[in-house]
Amino acid sequence: MKINLILLDSSLELVPKEIASHPAVIRNARKRNKKPEHTILDISLHYHAMKNLPNWRKRGRPDIVHLALLMFLTEKVPIKGEVYIHTIDGKIIYVNSDMRPPKNYNRFIGLAEQLLLHGQVPINDANPLMKILNIKLTDLKSKYKIGVLSEDGKKVKPEELCNLGENWLLGVGAFPHGDFSEEIKGVADEYFSISNYKLETHQVICRIISACLQQLGWP
Amino acid sequence: MKINLILLDSSLELVPKEIASHPAVIRNARKRNKKPEHTILDISLHYHAMKNLPNWRKRGRPDIVHLALLMFLTEKVPIKGEVYIHTIDGKIIYVNSDMRPPKNYNRFIGLAEQLLLHGQVPINDANPLMKILNIKLTDLKSKYKIGVLSEDGKKVKPEELCNLGENWLLGVGAFPHGDFSEEIKGVADEYFSISNYKLETHQVICRIISACLQQLGWP
Repeated sequence: MKINLILLDSSLELVPKEIASHPAVIRNARKRNKKPEHTILDISLHYHAMKNLPNWRKRGRPDIVHLALLMFLTEKVPIKGEVYIHTIDGKIIYVNSDMRPPKNYNRFIGLAEQLLLHGQVPINDANPLMKILNIKLTDLKSKYKIGVLSEDGKKVKPEELCNLGENWLLGVGAFPHGDFSEEIKGVADEYFSISNYKLETHQVICRIISACLQQLGWP
Repeated sequence: MKINLILLDSSLELVPKEIASHPAVIRNARKRNKKPEHTILDISLHYHAMKNLPNWRKRGRPDIVHLALLMFLTEKVPIKGEVYIHTIDGKIIYVNSDMRPPKNYNRFIGLAEQLLLHGQVPINDANPLMKILNIKLTDLKSKYKIGVLSEDGKKVKPEELCNLGENWLLGVGAFPHGDFSEEIKGVADEYFSISNYKLETHQVICRIISACLQQLGWP
Protein backbone atom coordinates (compact mmCIF):
# COMPACT_ATOMS: atom_id res chain seq x y z
CA MET A 1 0.00 0.00 0.00
CA LYS A 2 1.73 3.16 -1.25
CA ILE A 3 0.24 6.59 -1.71
CA ASN A 4 1.62 8.69 -4.54
CA LEU A 5 0.90 12.33 -3.80
CA ILE A 6 0.99 15.50 -5.84
CA LEU A 7 0.15 18.93 -4.46
CA LEU A 8 -1.76 20.80 -7.16
CA ASP A 9 -1.75 24.49 -8.18
CA SER A 10 0.53 24.95 -5.18
CA SER A 11 0.75 28.52 -3.99
CA LEU A 12 4.56 28.58 -4.08
CA GLU A 13 6.59 30.98 -6.20
CA LEU A 14 9.27 33.65 -6.03
CA VAL A 15 8.18 37.29 -5.93
CA PRO A 16 7.25 38.08 -9.53
CA LYS A 17 9.04 40.91 -11.37
CA GLU A 18 5.88 43.07 -11.50
CA ILE A 19 6.02 43.71 -7.77
CA ALA A 20 9.75 43.33 -7.03
CA SER A 21 10.10 47.08 -6.62
CA HIS A 22 7.13 47.52 -4.28
CA PRO A 23 8.30 49.09 -0.99
CA ALA A 24 6.87 46.30 1.20
CA VAL A 25 8.63 43.68 -0.90
CA ILE A 26 11.94 45.54 -0.83
CA ARG A 27 11.69 46.15 2.93
CA ASN A 28 11.10 42.49 3.73
CA ALA A 29 13.83 41.31 1.38
CA ARG A 30 16.30 43.77 2.88
CA LYS A 31 15.61 42.49 6.40
CA ARG A 32 16.81 39.11 5.20
CA ASN A 33 19.66 40.45 3.05
CA LYS A 34 18.08 39.05 -0.09
CA LYS A 35 17.13 40.48 -3.45
CA PRO A 36 13.33 40.94 -3.66
CA GLU A 37 13.01 38.54 -6.60
CA HIS A 38 14.95 35.91 -4.64
CA THR A 39 12.31 35.79 -1.89
CA ILE A 40 9.15 33.70 -1.76
CA LEU A 41 5.86 35.45 -2.40
CA ASP A 42 4.01 35.50 0.92
CA ILE A 43 0.68 37.21 1.37
CA SER A 44 1.37 37.77 5.06
CA LEU A 45 4.24 40.04 4.01
CA HIS A 46 3.22 41.20 0.54
CA TYR A 47 -0.52 41.68 0.79
CA HIS A 48 -0.61 45.26 -0.46
CA ALA A 49 1.89 44.57 -3.21
CA MET A 50 -0.02 41.51 -4.40
CA LYS A 51 -3.43 42.98 -4.82
CA ASN A 52 -2.87 43.91 -8.45
CA LEU A 53 -1.40 40.57 -9.47
CA PRO A 54 -3.58 38.36 -11.67
CA ASN A 55 -5.14 35.50 -9.75
CA TRP A 56 -3.74 36.92 -6.51
CA ARG A 57 -6.20 35.15 -4.24
CA LYS A 58 -4.66 31.80 -5.09
CA ARG A 59 -1.08 33.02 -4.64
CA GLY A 60 1.46 33.69 -1.89
CA ARG A 61 0.59 30.88 0.51
CA PRO A 62 3.78 28.83 0.97
CA ASP A 63 2.53 27.96 4.47
CA ILE A 64 -0.09 25.67 2.89
CA VAL A 65 2.61 23.78 1.01
CA HIS A 66 4.79 23.60 4.11
CA LEU A 67 2.00 22.21 6.27
CA ALA A 68 0.99 19.67 3.61
CA LEU A 69 4.56 18.42 3.20
CA LEU A 70 5.03 18.17 6.97
CA MET A 71 1.82 16.21 7.24
CA PHE A 72 2.77 13.69 4.57
CA LEU A 73 6.52 13.41 4.94
CA THR A 74 6.61 13.04 8.73
CA GLU A 75 4.89 9.67 8.34
CA LYS A 76 7.34 6.89 9.16
CA VAL A 77 5.11 3.93 8.32
CA PRO A 78 6.22 3.00 4.79
CA ILE A 79 3.11 4.07 2.90
CA LYS A 80 4.67 7.00 1.04
CA GLY A 81 5.12 6.47 -2.66
CA GLU A 82 6.28 9.22 -4.99
CA VAL A 83 5.76 12.84 -4.02
CA TYR A 84 5.48 15.85 -6.31
CA ILE A 85 4.56 19.49 -6.09
CA HIS A 86 2.81 21.07 -9.05
CA THR A 87 3.02 24.85 -8.68
CA ILE A 88 0.54 27.48 -9.69
CA ASP A 89 2.89 28.49 -12.54
CA GLY A 90 3.10 24.92 -13.83
CA LYS A 91 6.41 23.69 -12.46
CA ILE A 92 6.71 20.06 -11.40
CA ILE A 93 8.91 19.53 -8.37
CA TYR A 94 10.15 16.10 -7.37
CA VAL A 95 10.22 15.59 -3.59
CA ASN A 96 12.29 12.83 -2.05
CA SER A 97 9.79 10.94 0.07
CA ASP A 98 12.46 10.39 2.73
CA MET A 99 12.94 14.12 3.07
CA ARG A 100 12.23 15.58 6.49
CA PRO A 101 11.17 19.13 5.76
CA PRO A 102 12.23 21.74 8.31
CA LYS A 103 9.47 22.16 10.89
CA ASN A 104 10.32 25.79 11.24
CA TYR A 105 8.46 27.83 8.64
CA ASN A 106 11.21 30.37 8.06
CA ARG A 107 13.73 27.60 7.45
CA PHE A 108 11.34 26.01 4.98
CA ILE A 109 11.04 29.34 3.19
CA GLY A 110 14.83 29.52 2.92
CA LEU A 111 14.85 26.05 1.41
CA ALA A 112 12.04 26.84 -1.03
CA GLU A 113 13.89 29.98 -2.15
CA GLN A 114 16.98 27.93 -2.89
CA LEU A 115 14.88 25.37 -4.75
CA LEU A 116 13.15 27.90 -6.98
CA LEU A 117 16.32 29.89 -7.60
CA HIS A 118 18.75 27.05 -8.26
CA GLY A 119 16.44 24.28 -9.43
CA GLN A 120 17.18 21.90 -6.59
CA VAL A 121 18.15 21.53 -2.92
CA PRO A 122 20.77 20.87 -1.79
CA ILE A 123 22.43 22.66 -4.70
CA ASN A 124 24.90 20.42 -6.56
CA ASP A 125 23.83 17.25 -4.80
CA ALA A 126 23.39 14.12 -6.87
CA ASN A 127 20.47 13.04 -4.65
CA PRO A 128 18.43 16.18 -4.15
CA LEU A 129 15.68 16.43 -1.56
CA MET A 130 13.65 18.54 -3.96
CA LYS A 131 14.24 19.22 -7.62
CA ILE A 132 12.38 21.08 -10.35
CA LEU A 133 11.82 18.59 -13.16
CA ASN A 134 11.92 19.51 -16.78
CA ILE A 135 8.42 18.16 -17.40
CA LYS A 136 4.83 19.31 -17.39
CA LEU A 137 1.87 17.93 -15.48
CA THR A 138 0.62 16.15 -18.60
CA ASP A 139 3.86 14.18 -18.75
CA LEU A 140 2.92 12.46 -15.47
CA LYS A 141 -0.12 11.05 -17.28
CA SER A 142 2.06 8.51 -19.07
CA LYS A 143 2.97 7.02 -15.68
CA TYR A 144 -0.14 7.57 -13.56
CA LYS A 145 -3.86 7.90 -13.49
CA ILE A 146 -4.54 11.17 -11.73
CA GLY A 147 -7.18 11.28 -9.00
CA VAL A 148 -7.98 14.76 -7.77
CA LEU A 149 -9.48 15.38 -4.35
CA SER A 150 -12.33 17.81 -4.75
CA GLU A 151 -15.54 18.68 -2.92
CA ASP A 152 -17.49 17.95 -6.07
CA GLY A 153 -15.88 14.59 -6.69
CA LYS A 154 -17.24 11.10 -6.43
CA LYS A 155 -17.97 10.36 -2.79
CA VAL A 156 -15.59 7.75 -1.42
CA LYS A 157 -14.28 6.71 1.96
CA PRO A 158 -10.62 7.65 2.33
CA GLU A 159 -9.69 4.00 2.84
CA GLU A 160 -10.78 3.34 -0.74
CA LEU A 161 -8.03 5.69 -1.89
CA CYS A 162 -5.44 3.53 -0.13
CA ASN A 163 -6.43 0.62 -2.31
CA LEU A 164 -6.52 2.27 -5.71
CA GLY A 165 -3.13 0.87 -6.58
CA GLU A 166 0.23 2.39 -7.19
CA ASN A 167 -0.55 3.47 -10.72
CA TRP A 168 -2.67 6.25 -9.21
CA LEU A 169 -1.35 9.65 -8.30
CA LEU A 170 -3.52 11.47 -5.76
CA GLY A 171 -3.73 15.20 -6.30
CA VAL A 172 -4.60 17.60 -3.51
CA GLY A 173 -4.98 21.33 -4.10
CA ALA A 174 -2.47 23.45 -2.16
CA PHE A 175 -3.92 26.92 -2.60
CA PRO A 176 -6.21 29.02 -0.41
CA HIS A 177 -9.19 30.01 -2.55
CA GLY A 178 -10.83 29.35 -5.86
CA ASP A 179 -11.04 26.52 -8.28
CA PHE A 180 -8.51 24.22 -9.90
CA SER A 181 -6.76 25.64 -12.96
CA GLU A 182 -7.59 24.53 -16.47
CA GLU A 183 -4.30 22.64 -16.46
CA ILE A 184 -5.56 20.41 -13.64
CA LYS A 185 -8.96 19.97 -15.22
CA GLY A 186 -7.20 18.80 -18.36
CA VAL A 187 -5.35 15.96 -16.67
CA ALA A 188 -7.73 14.69 -13.97
CA ASP A 189 -8.86 11.11 -14.61
CA GLU A 190 -11.23 11.11 -11.67
CA TYR A 191 -12.37 13.42 -8.88
CA PHE A 192 -12.83 12.08 -5.36
CA SER A 193 -14.54 13.63 -2.36
CA ILE A 194 -13.82 12.25 1.12
CA SER A 195 -15.91 14.59 3.25
CA ASN A 196 -19.07 16.66 3.39
CA TYR A 197 -16.90 19.49 4.70
CA LYS A 198 -14.55 21.67 2.73
CA LEU A 199 -11.20 20.37 3.95
CA GLU A 200 -7.87 22.09 4.06
CA THR A 201 -4.90 20.51 2.32
CA HIS A 202 -3.31 19.08 5.47
CA GLN A 203 -6.68 17.68 6.58
CA VAL A 204 -7.12 15.78 3.34
CA ILE A 205 -3.66 14.31 3.74
CA CYS A 206 -4.24 13.49 7.42
CA ARG A 207 -7.48 11.66 6.61
CA ILE A 208 -5.98 9.64 3.78
CA ILE A 209 -2.85 8.65 5.70
CA SER A 210 -4.90 7.71 8.76
CA ALA A 211 -7.36 5.65 6.77
CA CYS A 212 -4.46 3.69 5.29
CA LEU A 213 -2.88 3.25 8.73
CA GLN A 214 -6.16 2.09 10.16
CA GLN A 215 -6.35 -0.56 7.43
CA LEU A 216 -2.87 -1.68 8.41
CA GLY A 217 -3.93 -2.00 12.06
CA TRP A 218 -2.40 1.30 13.19
CA PRO A 219 1.29 0.36 13.10
CA MET B 1 -18.10 12.15 20.94
CA LYS B 2 -15.88 15.01 22.08
CA ILE B 3 -12.12 15.03 22.50
CA ASN B 4 -10.71 17.20 25.27
CA LEU B 5 -7.10 17.97 24.47
CA ILE B 6 -4.20 19.36 26.43
CA LEU B 7 -0.74 19.92 25.01
CA LEU B 8 1.78 18.98 27.70
CA ASP B 9 5.17 20.48 28.65
CA SER B 10 4.65 22.69 25.59
CA SER B 11 7.81 24.30 24.33
CA LEU B 12 6.36 27.81 24.37
CA GLU B 13 7.78 30.66 26.44
CA LEU B 14 9.15 34.16 26.16
CA VAL B 15 12.91 34.64 26.01
CA PRO B 16 14.07 34.17 29.61
CA LYS B 17 15.97 36.98 31.36
CA GLU B 18 19.21 34.95 31.50
CA ILE B 19 19.69 35.26 27.75
CA ALA B 20 17.85 38.50 26.97
CA SER B 21 21.14 40.33 26.49
CA HIS B 22 22.69 37.74 24.16
CA PRO B 23 23.63 39.37 20.83
CA ALA B 24 21.60 36.90 18.73
CA VAL B 25 18.52 37.52 20.85
CA ILE B 26 18.91 41.29 20.70
CA ARG B 27 19.52 41.22 16.94
CA ASN B 28 16.40 39.21 16.22
CA ALA B 29 14.26 41.28 18.55
CA ARG B 30 15.50 44.50 16.98
CA LYS B 31 14.57 43.28 13.48
CA ARG B 32 11.01 43.06 14.74
CA ASN B 33 11.11 46.25 16.82
CA LYS B 34 10.50 44.30 20.01
CA LYS B 35 12.25 44.06 23.36
CA PRO B 36 14.17 40.77 23.60
CA GLU B 37 12.14 39.58 26.59
CA HIS B 38 8.95 40.27 24.66
CA THR B 39 9.84 37.74 21.95
CA ILE B 40 9.19 34.01 21.91
CA LEU B 41 12.12 31.71 22.54
CA ASP B 42 12.86 29.96 19.25
CA ILE B 43 15.74 27.57 18.80
CA SER B 44 15.93 28.34 15.09
CA LEU B 45 16.87 31.93 16.07
CA HIS B 46 18.40 31.52 19.52
CA TYR B 47 20.33 28.28 19.30
CA HIS B 48 23.66 29.66 20.48
CA ALA B 49 22.07 31.72 23.22
CA MET B 50 20.02 28.76 24.50
CA LYS B 51 22.76 26.24 24.93
CA ASN B 52 23.43 27.19 28.55
CA LEU B 53 19.79 27.23 29.61
CA PRO B 54 18.67 24.40 31.86
CA ASN B 55 16.64 21.79 30.03
CA TRP B 56 17.35 23.57 26.75
CA ARG B 57 16.68 20.57 24.55
CA LYS B 58 13.01 20.66 25.43
CA ARG B 59 12.69 24.42 24.92
CA GLY B 60 12.25 26.95 22.13
CA ARG B 61 9.98 24.99 19.79
CA PRO B 62 6.83 27.07 19.34
CA ASP B 63 6.48 25.53 15.87
CA ILE B 64 5.45 22.24 17.52
CA VAL B 65 2.67 24.00 19.40
CA HIS B 66 1.59 25.87 16.27
CA LEU B 67 1.39 22.72 14.19
CA ALA B 68 -0.50 20.84 16.91
CA LEU B 69 -3.05 23.62 17.29
CA LEU B 70 -3.52 23.87 13.52
CA MET B 71 -4.05 20.13 13.33
CA PHE B 72 -6.71 20.05 16.03
CA LEU B 73 -8.46 23.38 15.63
CA THR B 74 -8.88 23.23 11.86
CA GLU B 75 -11.28 20.34 12.32
CA LYS B 76 -14.84 21.44 11.52
CA VAL B 77 -16.63 18.24 12.46
CA PRO B 78 -17.89 18.96 16.00
CA ILE B 79 -15.64 16.57 17.91
CA LYS B 80 -13.57 19.21 19.68
CA GLY B 81 -14.18 19.50 23.40
CA GLU B 82 -12.09 21.69 25.65
CA VAL B 83 -8.58 22.64 24.62
CA TYR B 84 -5.67 23.62 26.85
CA ILE B 85 -1.97 24.22 26.56
CA HIS B 86 0.23 23.31 29.51
CA THR B 87 3.60 25.00 29.07
CA ILE B 88 7.03 23.80 30.06
CA ASP B 89 7.05 26.38 32.85
CA GLY B 90 3.71 25.20 34.23
CA LYS B 91 1.24 27.73 32.82
CA ILE B 92 -2.23 26.52 31.84
CA ILE B 93 -3.63 28.28 28.78
CA TYR B 94 -7.28 28.02 27.83
CA VAL B 95 -7.82 27.81 24.07
CA ASN B 96 -11.21 28.58 22.56
CA SER B 97 -11.97 25.50 20.50
CA ASP B 98 -13.56 27.67 17.82
CA MET B 99 -10.35 29.60 17.39
CA ARG B 100 -8.77 29.47 13.96
CA PRO B 101 -5.09 29.91 14.63
CA PRO B 102 -3.15 31.88 12.02
CA LYS B 103 -1.70 29.45 9.49
CA ASN B 104 1.30 31.67 9.04
CA TYR B 105 3.94 30.82 11.62
CA ASN B 106 5.18 34.37 12.11
CA ARG B 107 1.65 35.58 12.75
CA PHE B 108 1.17 32.81 15.28
CA ILE B 109 4.38 33.90 17.01
CA GLY B 110 3.03 37.45 17.24
CA LEU B 111 -0.16 36.12 18.82
CA ALA B 112 1.74 33.91 21.26
CA GLU B 113 3.88 36.87 22.29
CA GLN B 114 0.77 38.91 23.04
CA LEU B 115 -0.70 36.01 24.98
CA LEU B 116 2.34 35.46 27.18
CA LEU B 117 2.91 39.19 27.71
CA HIS B 118 -0.67 40.28 28.39
CA GLY B 119 -2.26 37.08 29.65
CA GLN B 120 -4.78 36.76 26.86
CA VAL B 121 -5.55 37.44 23.19
CA PRO B 122 -7.21 39.56 22.04
CA ILE B 123 -6.20 41.86 24.88
CA ASN B 124 -9.23 43.27 26.75
CA ASP B 125 -11.73 40.98 25.05
CA ALA B 126 -14.39 39.35 27.22
CA ASN B 127 -14.25 36.23 25.04
CA PRO B 128 -10.56 35.60 24.51
CA LEU B 129 -9.27 33.12 21.94
CA MET B 130 -6.49 32.14 24.33
CA LYS B 131 -6.04 33.04 27.97
CA ILE B 132 -3.57 32.12 30.69
CA LEU B 133 -5.59 30.66 33.56
CA ASN B 134 -4.74 31.20 37.16
CA ILE B 135 -4.57 27.47 37.85
CA LYS B 136 -2.09 24.61 37.86
CA LEU B 137 -2.19 21.31 36.01
CA THR B 138 -3.28 19.51 39.19
CA ASP B 139 -6.39 21.71 39.32
CA LEU B 140 -7.63 20.09 36.11
CA LYS B 141 -7.70 16.77 37.98
CA SER B 142 -10.86 17.80 39.77
CA LYS B 143 -12.64 17.97 36.43
CA TYR B 144 -10.93 15.30 34.34
CA LYS B 145 -9.14 12.02 34.31
CA ILE B 146 -5.89 12.68 32.48
CA GLY B 147 -4.77 10.25 29.79
CA VAL B 148 -1.28 10.88 28.50
CA LEU B 149 -0.16 9.68 25.09
CA SER B 150 3.21 8.04 25.47
CA GLU B 151 5.26 5.41 23.66
CA ASP B 152 5.43 3.39 26.86
CA GLY B 153 1.70 3.55 27.52
CA LYS B 154 -0.97 0.89 27.35
CA LYS B 155 -1.39 -0.15 23.75
CA VAL B 156 -4.77 0.98 22.38
CA LYS B 157 -6.29 1.69 19.01
CA PRO B 158 -6.88 5.41 18.59
CA GLU B 159 -10.61 4.80 18.14
CA GLU B 160 -10.72 3.62 21.75
CA LEU B 161 -9.66 7.10 22.81
CA CYS B 162 -12.70 8.56 21.05
CA ASN B 163 -14.93 6.55 23.31
CA LEU B 164 -13.33 7.19 26.69
CA GLY B 165 -15.97 9.75 27.53
CA GLU B 166 -15.93 13.46 28.07
CA ASN B 167 -14.56 13.25 31.59
CA TRP B 168 -11.19 12.37 30.05
CA LEU B 169 -8.60 14.93 29.04
CA LEU B 170 -6.10 13.61 26.50
CA GLY B 171 -2.59 14.93 26.96
CA VAL B 172 -0.07 15.02 24.14
CA GLY B 173 3.51 16.18 24.66
CA ALA B 174 4.43 19.29 22.65
CA PHE B 175 8.19 19.35 23.03
CA PRO B 176 10.99 18.03 20.83
CA HIS B 177 13.12 15.74 22.99
CA GLY B 178 13.23 14.04 26.33
CA ASP B 179 10.74 12.75 28.81
CA PHE B 180 7.65 14.20 30.44
CA SER B 181 8.28 16.43 33.45
CA GLU B 182 7.65 15.27 37.00
CA GLU B 183 4.59 17.56 36.99
CA ILE B 184 3.03 15.45 34.22
CA LYS B 185 3.98 12.19 35.85
CA GLY B 186 2.25 13.39 39.00
CA VAL B 187 -1.13 13.93 37.33
CA ALA B 188 -1.38 11.18 34.69
CA ASP B 189 -4.19 8.73 35.42
CA GLU B 190 -3.28 6.51 32.50
CA TYR B 191 -0.74 6.34 29.69
CA PHE B 192 -1.84 5.30 26.21
CA SER B 193 0.24 4.30 23.21
CA ILE B 194 -1.36 4.32 19.74
CA SER B 195 1.59 3.32 17.59
CA ASN B 196 4.75 1.24 17.44
CA TYR B 197 6.45 4.33 16.07
CA LYS B 198 7.54 7.40 17.95
CA LEU B 199 5.01 9.93 16.71
CA GLU B 200 5.24 13.67 16.52
CA THR B 201 2.63 15.79 18.26
CA HIS B 202 0.65 16.61 15.11
CA GLN B 203 0.71 12.96 14.06
CA VAL B 204 -0.82 11.84 17.35
CA ILE B 205 -3.56 14.42 16.93
CA CYS B 206 -4.12 13.49 13.28
CA ARG B 207 -4.50 9.82 14.16
CA ILE B 208 -6.92 10.43 17.03
CA ILE B 209 -9.09 12.88 15.08
CA SER B 210 -9.18 10.57 12.07
CA ALA B 211 -10.06 7.52 14.14
CA CYS B 212 -13.00 9.44 15.61
CA LEU B 213 -14.07 10.64 12.16
CA GLN B 214 -13.85 7.14 10.81
CA GLN B 215 -16.15 5.96 13.58
CA LEU B 216 -18.58 8.68 12.58
CA GLY B 217 -18.51 7.50 8.95
CA TRP B 218 -16.12 10.21 7.75
CA PRO B 219 -18.46 13.21 7.80
